[in-house]
Amino acid sequence: MATQTERDTREILKAVEGAAGQLPSAERRQFLRKALTAGAGTFAGAAFAGLSIAHAADVPASAGSKYPPGLPPWSRTLGPGVDWQPYGMPVKYQADVIRRQVAWLTQSPQASVNFSPLQHLNGTITPNGLFFCRYHSGCAQINPAEHRLLIHGMVERPLLLTMDDLMRYPAVSRTHFVECAANGAMEWKRAQLDSLQYTHGMLSCAEWTGVMLSTLLDQVGVKKGAKWLLIEGADGAKMARSIPLWKGLDDCILAYSQNGEALRAEQGYPVRAVIPGFEGNMNIKWVRRIKVSDRPWYTREETSEYTELRPDGKALAFDFYEDAKSVITFPCPEVPPQHGKGLYEIRGLAWSGRGKIKAVDVSFDGGANWRPAQLQGPVLTKSLTRFTVPWQWDGGPALLASRALDETGYVQPTIDELRAVRGDRGVYHNNSIQVWQVTAEGKVHNVQLA
Amino acid sequence: MATQTERDTREILKAVEGAAGQLPSAERRQFLRKALTAGAGTFAGAAFAGLSIAHAADVPASAGSKYPPGLPPWSRTLGPGVDWQPYGMPVKYQADVIRRQVAWLTQSPQASVNFSPLQHLNGTITPNGLFFCRYHSGCAQINPAEHRLLIHGMVERPLLLTMDDLMRYPAVSRTHFVECAANGAMEWKRAQLDSLQYTHGMLSCAEWTGVMLSTLLDQVGVKKGAKWLLIEGADGAKMARSIPLWKGLDDCILAYSQNGEALRAEQGYPVRAVIPGFEGNMNIKWVRRIKVSDRPWYTREETSEYTELRPDGKALAFDFYEDAKSVITFPCPEVPPQHGKGLYEIRGLAWSGRGKIKAVDVSFDGGANWRPAQLQGPVLTKSLTRFTVPWQWDGGPALLASRALDETGYVQPTIDELRAVRGDRGVYHNNSIQVWQVTAEGKVHNVQLA
Repeated sequence: MATQTERDTREILKAVEGAAGQLPSAERRQFLRKALTAGAGTFAGAAFAGLSIAHAADVPASAGSKYPPGLPPWSRTLGPGVDWQPYGMPVKYQADVIRRQVAWLTQSPQASVNFSPLQHLNGTITPNGLFFCRYHSGCAQINPAEHRLLIHGMVERPLLLTMDDLMRYPAVSRTHFVECAANGAMEWKRAQLDSLQYTHGMLSCAEWTGVMLSTLLDQVGVKKGAKWLLIEGADGAKMARSIPLWKGLDDCILAYSQNGEALRAEQGYPVRAVIPGFEGNMNIKWVRRIKVSDRPWYTREETSEYTELRPDGKALAFDFYEDAKSVITFPCPEVPPQHGKGLYEIRGLAWSGRGKIKAVDVSFDGGANWRPAQLQGPVLTKSLTRFTVPWQWDGGPALLASRALDETGYVQPTIDELRAVRGDRGVYHNNSIQVWQVTAEGKVHNVQLA
Repeated sequence: MATQTERDTREILKAVEGAAGQLPSAERRQFLRKALTAGAGTFAGAAFAGLSIAHAADVPASAGSKYPPGLPPWSRTLGPGVDWQPYGMPVKYQADVIRRQVAWLTQSPQASVNFSPLQHLNGTITPNGLFFCRYHSGCAQINPAEHRLLIHGMVERPLLLTMDDLMRYPAVSRTHFVECAANGAMEWKRAQLDSLQYTHGMLSCAEWTGVMLSTLLDQVGVKKGAKWLLIEGADGAKMARSIPLWKGLDDCILAYSQNGEALRAEQGYPVRAVIPGFEGNMNIKWVRRIKVSDRPWYTREETSEYTELRPDGKALAFDFYEDAKSVITFPCPEVPPQHGKGLYEIRGLAWSGRGKIKAVDVSFDGGANWRPAQLQGPVLTKSLTRFTVPWQWDGGPALLASRALDETGYVQPTIDELRAVRGDRGVYHNNSIQVWQVTAEGKVHNVQLA
């Protein structure tokens, strides 16, 4: 063992002495020129491959990077065995990757929201421990053996189900995002918070498993003339929303599983509604009842809340869709560009409540010029899509922005375009283009352009 | 509030009195006949829709199911607020959904494996806390700030990277399974364990984010004549495997993120190799070094371990692929059919290290007859795919089995077919058809057919 270790260490140290760690500047320029030529204005995989090489070629080993002398402690010891953590947890070095609330935002943490740390997340799946939470009367703690789901109203055969019953129906697994209607609410009047987590963190995405709501509606036999569903939670608020029947017959899921395992209490254990693409609060958690009717209910959450007062003085109700939206997740205020001028990969998320993301454009100058980003497949409907684009930062001030285009042809608007329609009393559905201001000092600020 | 509560309760109790909860038997028979006719021998979505309805129609409300009088406590109280669990955990009712080891399997838990509880999982994503673990010297606990990744050997420009450097390269996110080569090892000689968790639980799947290994190999400039890579871990075992260069240039990822968040220590924090479709041990965790060469290394893990003695006395080395395989996850020994005879949805997982799953067949009679299962999309390459098929259990003994077909045309073999090739000293690559014996008492046993 000692011989092996010594040999390894010698080999590594010898190799490191010869490691350039950085291309000669002439070669780097050549790569870069080739890449910029190949990629200009195109969106093809081939062009991106060229950019990738250039991008890679321009990333140096850190100036101070050297192989630590000898072997680190973790290469010289036994770690804990497979009996450690039957249910695993993140490493201590990731302790700041947590959900956060804004204490001043609400009077009580039981009728409030916390935000997912998008600035530290990759890919499209939100791990269950970091999925954002919105409660109207705190997180209900339900004993699944005592939980019942009732389906009644304008139906031929009312149905009362235990969780065990529900899980016997045909199961589907689908990946969908959930976004709070108030995501970005603090930003309607002006840019306020230098934080991706707080401007966009009421957004998460999971692979949900459950029963299609349409399966259960088939089972109970919806009566002629029915047009609406009430879905009601078993929490203290008995959170309830009216859902159009056509949506219930389309793609809604009564989900009991999230990313493979049972729902977390925070997400509605033992069963929640997933209403793909509609505002988060309609994805009722802890579902106890679904009632079929010929008219909507006008519950508290669709009159006092989740309606929008328009410039003409009328309130817009039943404003269901989370329209196409995107945001750059790197760089962002919490994770600025830390290596001075040079080539960076801009990364972000795009999503639409109306279907698939078709394209994302990125601007480095606040929207004066746009270039297409690369989408990361598979692009799924009403799910998160990752996009990337290389950015050659000259070290000066920059204004980074992204705009999403969905398969319906809808283009993500600016905040001014939204205000022109919705006025200045907006709370919900701020899907405007986010602009990050990069300063010459390498700071990133949340700004709105005049 | 009290008024609302009282009204809700009255409405529910009234509705429950009228809830049939079960179709009249004549109507149920009609649905079923229609479904069996529509679905016979077909594989189309339309046929499945018919089956879904029949399936749903045959699922009764539990005989003892009734709405509890009054409102349950969680509907009358405030739950914890959004400041509860900044990093969330499963509910207490799921406490038995954990990874488990087999104490007698190895001499030490530091050179051992634990098993993922597949019998309780849904969908295709394995939550990070339940991803199976295989260690050769325990779980290395690495400080990412002190970790270095060296790429050297037959390259033009050796490279030494910090984690910060690595994360600057172009990022990709892809979903792939990881399966231990020894998954099912205990079952080579005879059926031993009445347990899905222990027969198949060295299998998990995640969305990985990281840098394509091909990007880094472009960067260092592989010299002419190079054919192999050594990937070596920083754990005490310095676990190392030889990987063909073509594979490194194809679809391998140096991953730093798993299901959105940073890798868990158990999965190789801060960086692991993902070698899609190849046996699990090649997906080196805690990667500290990649060396390019013109020949393989014949490390301990490709000579003493992870080779297979064949009937002709020769050892088969470099047996990389996890070939097409499937298993029924419901019913299974841990979760038998609990409602007597009637209609059940059989559910399972299929995967192939050579690409996409093309089809899965299911047998109710130990392989005498097969019928096609429904695949759950999107079907991704070298990832887990869910399948389902309705099963009308007559209450008598049954032998449930599934067989996967991948896009290369390969069909999952029986254990006897495997033994004919590999002999009786097998340890690795048991991808044989799993047969679950259902007894008239509703128990499920692990059997092998003579």
